Amino acid sequence: MVLMALTSRGRVVEENSDVMLYLDEKRKYMVKARRGSKLHTHRGYVDMDSVVGASYGSRVKSNVGVDFVVLQPTLWDYVLKVARRTQVIYPKDMALMVFRLGLTSGMRVVEAGTGSGALTCALAYFVKPGVVYSYEINPKFQEVARRNIERAGLMDYVVLKLKDITQGIDEEDVDAVVLDMAAPWLVVEHAYQALKGGGFFASFSPTINQVEKTVLALRRRGFVDVRVYELLLREIKVEEGAVRPFTLMIGHTGYVTFARKSL
Amino acid sequence: MVLMALTSRGRVVEENSDVMLYLDEKRKYMVKARRGSKLHTHRGYVDMDSVVGASYGSRVKSNVGVDFVVLQPTLWDYVLKVARRTQVIYPKDMALMVFRLGLTSGMRVVEAGTGSGALTCALAYFVKPGVVYSYEINPKFQEVARRNIERAGLMDYVVLKLKDITQGIDEEDVDAVVLDMAAPWLVVEHAYQALKGGGFFASFSPTINQVEKTVLALRRRGFVDVRVYELLLREIKVEEGAVRPFTLMIGHTGYVTFARKSL
Amino acid sequence: MVLMALTSRGRVVEENSDVMLYLDEKRKYMVKARRGSKLHTHRGYVDMDSVVGASYGSRVKSNVGVDFVVLQPTLWDYVLKVARRTQVIYPKDMALMVFRLGLTSGMRVVEAGTGSGALTCALAYFVKPGVVYSYEINPKFQEVARRNIERAGLMDYVVLKLKDITQGIDEEDVDAVVLDMAAPWLVVEHAYQALKGGGFFASFSPTINQVEKTVLALRRRGFVDVRVYELLLREIKVEEGAVRPFTLMIGHTGYVTFARKSL
Amino acid sequence: MVLMALTSRGRVVEENSDVMLYLDEKRKYMVKARRGSKLHTHRGYVDMDSVVGASYGSRVKSNVGVDFVVLQPTLWDYVLKVARRTQVIYPKDMALMVFRLGLTSGMRVVEAGTGSGALTCALAYFVKPGVVYSYEINPKFQEVARRNIERAGLMDYVVLKLKDITQGIDEEDVDAVVLDMAAPWLVVEHAYQALKGGGFFASFSPTINQVEKTVLALRRRGFVDVRVYELLLREIKVEEGAVRPFTLMIGHTGYVTFARKSL
Repeated sequence: MVLMALTSRGRVVEENSDVMLYLDEKRKYMVKARRGSKLHTHRGYVDMDSVVGASYGSRVKSNVGVDFVVLQPTLWDYVLKVARRTQVIYPKDMALMVFRLGLTSGMRVVEAGTGSGALTCALAYFVKPGVVYSYEINPKFQEVARRNIERAGLMDYVVLKLKDITQGIDEEDVDAVVLDMAAPWLVVEHAYQALKGGGFFASFSPTINQVEKTVLALRRRGFVDVRVYELLLREIKVEEGAVRPFTLMIGHTGYVTFARKSL
Repeated sequence: MVLMALTSRGRVVEENSDVMLYLDEKRKYMVKARRGSKLHTHRGYVDMDSVVGASYGSRVKSNVGVDFVVLQPTLWDYVLKVARRTQVIYPKDMALMVFRLGLTSGMRVVEAGTGSGALTCALAYFVKPGVVYSYEINPKFQEVARRNIERAGLMDYVVLKLKDITQGIDEEDVDAVVLDMAAPWLVVEHAYQALKGGGFFASFSPTINQVEKTVLALRRRGFVDVRVYELLLREIKVEEGAVRPFTLMIGHTGYVTFARKSL
Repeated sequence: MVLMALTSRGRVVEENSDVMLYLDEKRKYMVKARRGSKLHTHRGYVDMDSVVGASYGSRVKSNVGVDFVVLQPTLWDYVLKVARRTQVIYPKDMALMVFRLGLTSGMRVVEAGTGSGALTCALAYFVKPGVVYSYEINPKFQEVARRNIERAGLMDYVVLKLKDITQGIDEEDVDAVVLDMAAPWLVVEHAYQALKGGGFFASFSPTINQVEKTVLALRRRGFVDVRVYELLLREIKVEEGAVRPFTLMIGHTGYVTFARKSL
Repeated sequence: MVLMALTSRGRVVEENSDVMLYLDEKRKYMVKARRGSKLHTHRGYVDMDSVVGASYGSRVKSNVGVDFVVLQPTLWDYVLKVARRTQVIYPKDMALMVFRLGLTSGMRVVEAGTGSGALTCALAYFVKPGVVYSYEINPKFQEVARRNIERAGLMDYVVLKLKDITQGIDEEDVDAVVLDMAAPWLVVEHAYQALKGGGFFASFSPTINQVEKTVLALRRRGFVDVRVYELLLREIKVEEGAVRPFTLMIGHTGYVTFARKSL
């Protein structure tokens, strides 16, 4: 069942669930395990009938005899797939947020903007069975996000709101407010009102000017432990006797700002 | 109560719980809220009687009138405090592991070595009420780790084992094997046996030579989706009109290797 | 005259000299100022008759009225143009070498391999009227390099040698030995023989395994002040109110190893 | 003779010249080779009488029998020694400037502020027998710089000016204007007047706000090929079988802005 996508702990691929077919270190394909359908690749096609019921970790063959490994998609896979449309916040940045905020079961988090729902998925995954209240002003984005969150099986833990968060936050006493939007400094006062004592403000911004405005607004409002981080992720290429970082790299995604509410 | 440290959702400081007293961006103090005790700082002392029962986010004054903000300690705080003894794996690296592995409630994870217990705390925090089986060969390290994990309130989700993981792993069908040890390549075969299909191998190593040996062993054993990452964390200093990264930086902690078991 | 390309100090474009026609921050074109020829671009063509005799820094118009700025090509431009074929060593790495070695007029330097001649140009530019002895085993590479070095006007300061440097170095008492080749550790002994007391060994290598072998060979031979550096170059994108590093970045070129001969 | 410090090509240490006594990868000492004096270290003292007349690259012994290697100081050594007082611009940044500008014999360069003279030394080293016109408003800084430049033997190629460069530049038709000062945007118009067509503007600034103001001023004035770079220098620690970057790193020095004058 779709709703279980990221939380299923089964050992075999259920019909209509998402599955990751792994070919090699450069190519893997996320696809729905629908009976009667095929995944076409440059290395032949995979009959999905052979995938339904297969054990995770096992191999299936394409029609030309090439092995594909059957893997359960992870949060990382969903996030990368969803985020590809906008290419702003990356898993490394979400990981830092989740860990710094210590997101855990049962927490209540406010998020804006929903965008394609990639960050929403990540937050919901870690707070479930808690809830993410996600604000967005563009109804088209919200619809895309709804489909993405449903596909990841996380919609039970998300409330999508078609509202401008710069006009206010309805929720109270939340554990965290997490922002990925153009003008986060306009939400500082609302975040202060919505957060519980000691609760976390977190914001992702691509430019240093956004960071400066946001940090100054946070300090003026009395937030404490204000910190700004940038993460650089290098991938290492390992060949025997020839280890080196890859030549090309994502050199910048954005800065992550954290602060805590002081009464 | 100590066991609740990182999972308590109370609004006020309970007696004998850990509390973080925040002075400024450079100084915060984790201390137990014991009636009758004092925290001595260069800005005067804080009477802990004024802290017990205080709301999180509120301010208490030292005897010379300086404000300290009362905050609930986070996973990050525990990890930094515990890891300071060994200074190898950092929160940024743990965050990447937790997110890549998609650690969530109920998972079963094997870890080695326990060391000071910093990584153990992080894993347990995200899999609770699941369990972390943590291997260590040095009984002194294990005792230190036990105290740290108990202080963080996570001991209910950890099984400490005084065993050499290079001799084998007792558990089966686990979701992940996570290593922070000198010779991770010696555990590749045991990890393969212990993991469920598609399960994750993850390893942190400071040197590139460890990475090379481990990756070659993983490929030989048939692991797939083998990836090696290095994270650089820069902190940004924000003054109005003068924004820049800090001069000094931790330039290297280590490399994180991921792989998935293919049957 | 071609030979003067990088050393000419004239104020106007001489016939048949190289000139850089700058359109915008993404596009600039290095082209020979030949009477009767045209530079064709997507913004129209530039008649080179209008370029010959133009002052450096002035603007010429394409046939559709778009401005191009007439600039004298720099060492950097030549190096980038030449290196594009092999894409290994970058200007940032050459800059570090030139500065660490303190290359200056009259020095004598041994180099290998010549490759496309990019590094040869850089070395010759700084030691002129000294000399660079450049070793290469592939005659085709040497011919390409010869044309590139001639175009840069630096051939008077270069001796191209069709010889395997791992078999020995003919020169003695040189100021520096600079390597960009697959197995620099095989040249350590020869470099020791060729260098004057206190002279510099410098080597560029893409992989960490090459670095390890080279450093161990240098230490065994008694070189001192052995240092290995890696440079990361980020370019910053400046728009008013929106300053940030560029998204894509060259994440790795190679490591630069330095050492000095001790008697 | 002092004036020859960085340009001497002798094979033996002349009396009263600077010499670098190298102990190990962590310790080297720049000292004047004065007969009758001693260098005291934690590994005994070196009698400078044994150093005068020694061959570069040879070894001398301290009174307790520890070897020191006698090396000729390099530009890099002078720059590090001088810059240590202010710790802003580093050799890596100077190297990038020198290479991007293609500084070579005979060029005329304007610089501000003189500061301790570290950058002045680097510029003079590469343009000699050209000249660096160096502006400074603080007479104390200028005196310190004069001593440093004299010690490096480069004073013949430097004109020290006690003047505020934001009030104007006296020179005309210069090859480059190089700035390391708090408000470089105030010099953009003067630099434009002083530069020859196609000449280079270069500026080093620690904060991103300085960069933004300077780039906008350069574009408004019609400079072209405006580029901003940041260099990260990592040092690699090589032990056999244990290669890794050093833990601590200078994470930020500043940004380097380049532009060329268009008429």
